[in-house]
Amino acid sequence: MNLPNRNTQVQLRRQRDGLPDAADFQMGDATIPDLAEGEILVRSIYLSLDPYIRKAVRGDHPGHVALKPGDVIYGRSVCRVVRSRHADYKQGDFLVAETGWQHYAAISPKKIVQRIDPALGPLSTAIGVLGMPGLTAWGSVAHLATPTVGDTYVVSAAAGPVGGTVGQLAKLAGARVIGIAGGKEKCEVVTRGYGFDVCIDYKKEGWEAALQAACPNGIDIYHDNVGTPLLSVLVKYFNLYAKVVMCGRPGDYHSGEFQGISLGPFIGKRAQMKGLVVYDYEKDMPRYLRVASTLVREGKLRFKEDHADGIENTPAHFLKLMRGENIGKCIVAVGPEKG
Amino acid sequence: MNLPNRNTQVQLRRQRDGLPDAADFQMGDATIPDLAEGEILVRSIYLSLDPYIRKAVRGDHPGHVALKPGDVIYGRSVCRVVRSRHADYKQGDFLVAETGWQHYAAISPKKIVQRIDPALGPLSTAIGVLGMPGLTAWGSVAHLATPTVGDTYVVSAAAGPVGGTVGQLAKLAGARVIGIAGGKEKCEVVTRGYGFDVCIDYKKEGWEAALQAACPNGIDIYHDNVGTPLLSVLVKYFNLYAKVVMCGRPGDYHSGEFQGISLGPFIGKRAQMKGLVVYDYEKDMPRYLRVASTLVREGKLRFKEDHADGIENTPAHFLKLMRGENIGKCIVAVGPEKG
Repeated sequence: MNLPNRNTQVQLRRQRDGLPDAADFQMGDATIPDLAEGEILVRSIYLSLDPYIRKAVRGDHPGHVALKPGDVIYGRSVCRVVRSRHADYKQGDFLVAETGWQHYAAISPKKIVQRIDPALGPLSTAIGVLGMPGLTAWGSVAHLATPTVGDTYVVSAAAGPVGGTVGQLAKLAGARVIGIAGGKEKCEVVTRGYGFDVCIDYKKEGWEAALQAACPNGIDIYHDNVGTPLLSVLVKYFNLYAKVVMCGRPGDYHSGEFQGISLGPFIGKRAQMKGLVVYDYEKDMPRYLRVASTLVREGKLRFKEDHADGIENTPAHFLKLMRGENIGKCIVAVGPEKG
Repeated sequence: MNLPNRNTQVQLRRQRDGLPDAADFQMGDATIPDLAEGEILVRSIYLSLDPYIRKAVRGDHPGHVALKPGDVIYGRSVCRVVRSRHADYKQGDFLVAETGWQHYAAISPKKIVQRIDPALGPLSTAIGVLGMPGLTAWGSVAHLATPTVGDTYVVSAAAGPVGGTVGQLAKLAGARVIGIAGGKEKCEVVTRGYGFDVCIDYKKEGWEAALQAACPNGIDIYHDNVGTPLLSVLVKYFNLYAKVVMCGRPGDYHSGEFQGISLGPFIGKRAQMKGLVVYDYEKDMPRYLRVASTLVREGKLRFKEDHADGIENTPAHFLKLMRGENIGKCIVAVGPEKG
């Protein structure tokens, strides 16, 4: 892969509700930006495609400025410092930063999410198992759910980078781990790849009976990546005092319609429900990276990435994520690691 | 009040959904029952009217046999042993037991909820502040919410026996306590009677602004006695990591229609939600009674009872409870304490 010589961008074409489609995006071409004092010029290597980016199209993401048509889609990437006018960063440094979907970005340090130590693992893992998805899993397992030996631990969206890591950490902590995922291929990643005890394909007839059979002692912990419809079913199999880590809720909206949940059954089960926001655990990232990079090196913590190549393929790859057809962390390789 | 000489009963007249009305009940007249070996004949003194009894009419209460027309409505009472064929109970003992709505019941020991030590407080408190409602509040405050000095603690249905006790215990633990209740009279019980810092009348225009003004530092703990519609509003004023004790959910059904809740805002607030079922704390009743009876004696834990007299007035008093028009614990005095 050659170094890009133009600043190709993916821009918002139109803002609207509903699931994004290809016509919501457009390609743009810009010059490589100049640097102000205190800024850093970075070159994107791996774009991180994440569900929250959907809100760029809807225009309602808290903590982000609403985009206008023609603006670069926001998002993080593994990137490398090309030129620096900031004393703390030098050419060649690897970072995870808020670059947006483009080849080059001039950023201030507050757009930097983390420095990458390339010795810890493959560079792309800095936006996956050794990045925010991994830290999300760490917050869920080590801070909120705190499983113990013999717990039955259920994880939804189990083939994804958060769910996959949650289940593996839970298993290392002695739990029996049951994944839930859609389709045979994902379920194989979950069991053969990540080593979960069982994976339930929720797209298959009879999945609920299969889940029940997989949890003969009931469910002690549920990491909820998907929201209402599934949570309403799972509560039936909760043990008393079951813990729920509430992490993502894409399922609360079906065809744009809100699906509310009844909390009554959760009272009956004396459920303990906790909301998770990954930013709360940023201070614990060094510890997580020590633990997880060792596990990755030893082959005890595995990850799966779903790569596309070339920035022009970013919208299509993102739409695949939106349809739930990705297997593992969605990444677009947009430039070489070296150089 | 004279000792009843017949076993007058309130019976189910018809089973149906929806709010009960007077035509769902009928008065019946039976003989005073005979005793089998191991049984105890008790005479009801104070019937405890509780929201769950509504399910006797609907026929869907878990843990109770579904009633047929002509059956005695179930429920607890403060009662006294008239005759005993069980070595552990003797004539004159005071009990809280599952007697149903009738003057006399022949019961086995498994229908006994607790023995009453009449030295602890007025007899009627054994179904209120020194009974299950009090223990519910104790479970909420001492086991689940565990408030600390300076917490802002909001309690719904604050004029009732559970809510009123929750708020007073929370205040003794150093919290700033805000009640929510419907109507001026209830709000006065909550502030002047129970000593809450503020009570918000949710039936008054502008109540949400009043609540916000009463919680300038946000809400740290919410004891939820009512369910969805209010919880959906309160989450806006939660601090991060706010705790919710989920206790009762009558509000989840409005005119019979289910009102679901969105858990998304609870993730944003990193809410910690816990389901409460009072039976879990029965083993802690002796400790609660030691603590609470002392507080009651010292005037530091106050209670409010809404009495009716005569078993024939039970349905009307229960319908008052169903309409939320009772002020304090709903009790029907059906027989004298002495004799």
